[in-house]
Amino acid sequence: MLRLFYAAGTCALASHIALEEAGAEVELVRLDFRSNDQRKPEFLSINPKGRVPALVTDKGILTETPAILAFIAQSFPKARLAPLADPFDFACVQAFNSYLCSTVHIAHAHRMRGYRWADDPAAIREMQRKVPEAVGECFDLIERMMFKGPWVMGEAYTICDPYLFTLSQWLEADGVDPARLPKIVEFRTRMSARPTVKKALAEELR
Amino acid sequence: MLRLFYAAGTCALASHIALEEAGAEVELVRLDFRSNDQRKPEFLSINPKGRVPALVTDKGILTETPAILAFIAQSFPKARLAPLADPFDFACVQAFNSYLCSTVHIAHAHRMRGYRWADDPAAIREMQRKVPEAVGECFDLIERMMFKGPWVMGEAYTICDPYLFTLSQWLEADGVDPARLPKIVEFRTRMSARPTVKKALAEELR
Repeated sequence: MLRLFYAAGTCALASHIALEEAGAEVELVRLDFRSNDQRKPEFLSINPKGRVPALVTDKGILTETPAILAFIAQSFPKARLAPLADPFDFACVQAFNSYLCSTVHIAHAHRMRGYRWADDPAAIREMQRKVPEAVGECFDLIERMMFKGPWVMGEAYTICDPYLFTLSQWLEADGVDPARLPKIVEFRTRMSARPTVKKALAEELR
Repeated sequence: MLRLFYAAGTCALASHIALEEAGAEVELVRLDFRSNDQRKPEFLSINPKGRVPALVTDKGILTETPAILAFIAQSFPKARLAPLADPFDFACVQAFNSYLCSTVHIAHAHRMRGYRWADDPAAIREMQRKVPEAVGECFDLIERMMFKGPWVMGEAYTICDPYLFTLSQWLEADGVDPARLPKIVEFRTRMSARPTVKKALAEELR
């Protein structure tokens, strides 16, 4: 049995949806970021980085969304969540998820987690001010160059889809007008209609 | 034949070393960041993100260090650069590389690429001021909790090693005193003695 540590409204949603898509049996463990659960010793013993998601497996604990997503795809091959047979195709999936993790999510994180990279409140406000521009540039690139449609990688649904869906949930709050991103808006609607996504979202809101 | 687009002193070194370890035939294509080669149309047609590394393969172009490293490990299985047979073990390798990419490299990037997240020069200086603390915290965690020794994952050399080596090259310039990181300093020395690493470094300095 897998256990997924998550917090509502975080990137852990991507792993949660992927586990649903895989048909995995999973126990959800909710952390409350407002109570700073992620900094408490109980959770730091699970993930010393103090972040979600963390996936507890029979073999040990995994962190980092791109790694967890690839683990789910490889552990549940029947769900066909990644092109596992070909190293190049698999690397394309990983490259997309790595971009989401190390560039798109980071651009977003400067809105609420600026304290990671600056102490001065004025600098933190300046980072927040630039978030719409930085996040917007990332999504423009995805819209124009990376998204194949109807899913990220084309005809096949992959572990890129729940991850892009998760980050695209934050566009409005990041100050990016979705109207400039018609493919991504349509993709969000398509994702929202999937029973797995509905189930994961309902579980997070419970 | 593979072609690796790189620039000296960048994270592309990790892919370069891994290709050497794999025994891959590779043509190196050097970009000069001081001339802004990475923003010129010729290179943007290779990688619209305007960053290195980019690996041109027979099947297409790959970007993002964690994805390229996993591609090298999977494409040259005889080199045994990752535990490919087990999804959990492989995910541990990927989780480490994802942490390097999305947290450690990002902490470092606030020293020279602060303009990605702020325009105000005072805010950019404030980010630079905090780099020793932010990068230092990452490496403290690697030293205390993540690095198994003698290689990142323990007895087996993996694609984590050239990546950690590459980022650990920047410690001094980032204002982190390596004396507090004895395991990582020893690891750097061990890596520097490998013929593959010597060859890659010599090629980059040429």
